Amino acid sequence: MQVSFTSAEILDLVRPQETRGATDALIVGIGALASAGPGELSFLGNPKFRAEAAASRASVLLLPLDYVGEPAAGQLHLLVADPSAALDRICQRIEQMLWPQPLAGNHPSAVVDASAKLGEGVTIGPLCIVEAGAEIGPRTHLQAQVFVGRNARLGEGCWLMPGAVVTAECVLGNRVRLHPGVVVGSDGFGYTFVQGRHEKVPQVGDVIIEDDVEVGANTTIDRARFSRTRIGAGTKIDNQVQIAHNVVIGKHCILCAQVGISGSTQLEDYVILGGQAGVAGHLTIGKGAKSGGAAAITSSVPAGTFVNGSPARTYMLERRLQVLFQRLPELFKRVGELEEQIKLSSA
Amino acid sequence: MQVSFTSAEILDLVRPQETRGATDALIVGIGALASAGPGELSFLGNPKFRAEAAASRASVLLLPLDYVGEPAAGQLHLLVADPSAALDRICQRIEQMLWPQPLAGNHPSAVVDASAKLGEGVTIGPLCIVEAGAEIGPRTHLQAQVFVGRNARLGEGCWLMPGAVVTAECVLGNRVRLHPGVVVGSDGFGYTFVQGRHEKVPQVGDVIIEDDVEVGANTTIDRARFSRTRIGAGTKIDNQVQIAHNVVIGKHCILCAQVGISGSTQLEDYVILGGQAGVAGHLTIGKGAKSGGAAAITSSVPAGTFVNGSPARTYMLERRLQVLFQRLPELFKRVGELEEQIKLSSA
Amino acid sequence: MQVSFTSAEILDLVRPQETRGATDALIVGIGALASAGPGELSFLGNPKFRAEAAASRASVLLLPLDYVGEPAAGQLHLLVADPSAALDRICQRIEQMLWPQPLAGNHPSAVVDASAKLGEGVTIGPLCIVEAGAEIGPRTHLQAQVFVGRNARLGEGCWLMPGAVVTAECVLGNRVRLHPGVVVGSDGFGYTFVQGRHEKVPQVGDVIIEDDVEVGANTTIDRARFSRTRIGAGTKIDNQVQIAHNVVIGKHCILCAQVGISGSTQLEDYVILGGQAGVAGHLTIGKGAKSGGAAAITSSVPAGTFVNGSPARTYMLERRLQVLFQRLPELFKRVGELEEQIKLSSA
Repeated sequence: MQVSFTSAEILDLVRPQETRGATDALIVGIGALASAGPGELSFLGNPKFRAEAAASRASVLLLPLDYVGEPAAGQLHLLVADPSAALDRICQRIEQMLWPQPLAGNHPSAVVDASAKLGEGVTIGPLCIVEAGAEIGPRTHLQAQVFVGRNARLGEGCWLMPGAVVTAECVLGNRVRLHPGVVVGSDGFGYTFVQGRHEKVPQVGDVIIEDDVEVGANTTIDRARFSRTRIGAGTKIDNQVQIAHNVVIGKHCILCAQVGISGSTQLEDYVILGGQAGVAGHLTIGKGAKSGGAAAITSSVPAGTFVNGSPARTYMLERRLQVLFQRLPELFKRVGELEEQIKLSSA
Repeated sequence: MQVSFTSAEILDLVRPQETRGATDALIVGIGALASAGPGELSFLGNPKFRAEAAASRASVLLLPLDYVGEPAAGQLHLLVADPSAALDRICQRIEQMLWPQPLAGNHPSAVVDASAKLGEGVTIGPLCIVEAGAEIGPRTHLQAQVFVGRNARLGEGCWLMPGAVVTAECVLGNRVRLHPGVVVGSDGFGYTFVQGRHEKVPQVGDVIIEDDVEVGANTTIDRARFSRTRIGAGTKIDNQVQIAHNVVIGKHCILCAQVGISGSTQLEDYVILGGQAGVAGHLTIGKGAKSGGAAAITSSVPAGTFVNGSPARTYMLERRLQVLFQRLPELFKRVGELEEQIKLSSA
Repeated sequence: MQVSFTSAEILDLVRPQETRGATDALIVGIGALASAGPGELSFLGNPKFRAEAAASRASVLLLPLDYVGEPAAGQLHLLVADPSAALDRICQRIEQMLWPQPLAGNHPSAVVDASAKLGEGVTIGPLCIVEAGAEIGPRTHLQAQVFVGRNARLGEGCWLMPGAVVTAECVLGNRVRLHPGVVVGSDGFGYTFVQGRHEKVPQVGDVIIEDDVEVGANTTIDRARFSRTRIGAGTKIDNQVQIAHNVVIGKHCILCAQVGISGSTQLEDYVILGGQAGVAGHLTIGKGAKSGGAAAITSSVPAGTFVNGSPARTYMLERRLQVLFQRLPELFKRVGELEEQIKLSSA
């Protein structure tokens, strides 16, 4: 980052209960206790790293109230109730500096249809396209090179980053964030096999993404055959996730990178899928169910269940089976020895 | 969808053999029998859902000719030979309304080289780029923010959606559809290891995509080292599929989402690969072979064979092995008991 | 390719030690010995294909100095010390013809902030965006529809292809190539669970990509929470790879297509990961370690180790276990027979 803070600015953000020592270094970075050096800030989030805090060369340290120890020369200790929360306040400030609120209005290079309805404080950045009949809610920001198709509707305070695509008729709630390269509303993958050829089944439904959903870079979400592909409020989706047509995802789910969800599958609320997990079509993943990374989920998962493996099984069963799998050489040997003994005893 | 139909318009599309009841609701959606409500249309595609049809609250129901039952108040029954086909006719009409034939011509914001050759009825949408020497066949539609590189050649009636990229020299046949974010003709991944560094092997071949191929959002298809990466006519490719250099794919294949195919592998005609399946390099997947989802295919697959698992094995073998795998705890127990009995009998 | 060579041009590039025969065909393609025909060039890179060379219909053949055999009518044999190296020289020439050095300067359709600093010989292609404070090093080429965010810094001789995105504050070294659709600097995927909702952890670090890195189409690289996600010099990354926040990748690594690396994991130098491999978070993959395709790496890997499987194990162990896994039906049978014999002997 190219932003920087003086000690005074940090004190103002953190408001520590106690300070020890002082530094006149300009803080230009944040680092882990062991790697941070002069001009950087670090923090003791986990008590087990106390020794690393004592040895840290960072110019500013965020420490818990019960921390015992004196700062090195030119080092400032800030004692706070919750060092991680204090760090978050600094990071939020940096976030505002890195991505300042854009000025409202349409960049002259944007192509915005005259029939589009733009709310108050909307920013349409350079080289964006907004097609006929689209509605963009107040303070929503199309950053750059974004595409919003015919009659698409976006809520308030959304942020669509460079190259994001929302195709015709799709709907975004409020405060939805689409990272670069996201595609919302590509056709579902449906064909019927007729006389040796795959004939396209029309995909005329749409996608609705509810409030406070964040979608990672290059993720793709297909429109429904008819009706709607739905992403529930508060769900967070990582990069390169694939969500097929007619999938229904509940509220506050977490889908890690490269997850794939096949058509018409339903995830209830609070489901968590590890990276590269795949879910077959027409299944139900119950409320609060979880999967490990790379799990291949081929049947429905009851609520609250943790599954793992390829094919996925309940976590404890899979763990036990993997342990026994590693013992197969031993088992083959034991069976061979038994056979030997039987042969001898019957000889 | 924001399109709507009156009963009269639906009658005109469906041309039922018999009608029962009537509705004056404007039809604004399509839903499953159990979930559709007033203002929506539903259909009985599978006789086993007859009870759901009887209970449906949809304003219009498409039903088979032998359906017995009276409509509810304000409900219209349309009896037809094939309710699914009737639904398809309605969906095709919606498709035309959602994506009307664009007007021919170049949007003023498009950057089209003077040496590009554009066929009759070509549409170059906003913020598209067509480089020198490119040829675009009649009625092909570059929707928005599309890139077509030097000397690329596109056939008739293609549709390239927002952000699709076709790099220099690549070739598309007729009626090819590229969904948003597709990349055709990125470099193959080839390096030689020389004195501790990976030196790039030039990738100067191209990609040819034959007629009637559809390519899903954010899929990537690499150009050949020399010669051609080839996608056969009628093949359908889902989202986020990766096709490496020198791959040759036959006609009428189906590649589900997130499939990866390594370099120089050949798929014969009518191959079907499930989602997230991976195929190693330099293999041949025979005509009509299939894989399950997440299969890791590490050796060639004979024609007509169904494989599954990681590593992939023939379907029946993999299924049997997975059943036995789940019985490992029992097997260890049985072997332990045998050892106990042998010990006792020899004591 | 639409480039072509006369025999004289090829002689000039290859400078053979000996020629046999002649052709007046214009060379318009390169092919394998068995498939190349008139108008094409082929080469004998591996002595075991000598018979194919003798039967080849190619107009020009690159052959080793010890090759014995006469050209067919209208066929030209070029005898060289290293046929593969000679082919590379021709391919490099084709590469220059396919992607000529662009003219320096900004395309009039590009949107370049007045405060951006552009080095000598920089090319900003059509519909690119360069935001405030960005620095672009000498001879770097933004091809088309590229996005470079605020204060991003790019070194010399980089090539960013259509639709590549580099977000605010990220840093690229020299001679970095980003293929179409690459996203550098999307937010890391970090949330804390507070009162039933996932609250975003600010992601205010950046990404640094060192010299001579190549990044494949639609690959995504997330910015660090704070500090830096780092890709070491000379590393080559294929298409659709996902690299999470705070990952540190060493020098000269190879990441094949669709690999996913979870947060804070470190790859030391010369690591090679096969296609679709996944690595869990907070691990260390030692120098020169390798994985097979689709490996699910769930624990750290020592230097020089080859791992495979899901979950990944050392290659030899995994191979042995897979062999025994296939023999499970036999093992169950043998245990059944032992039980039978014990029962008989104790009867």
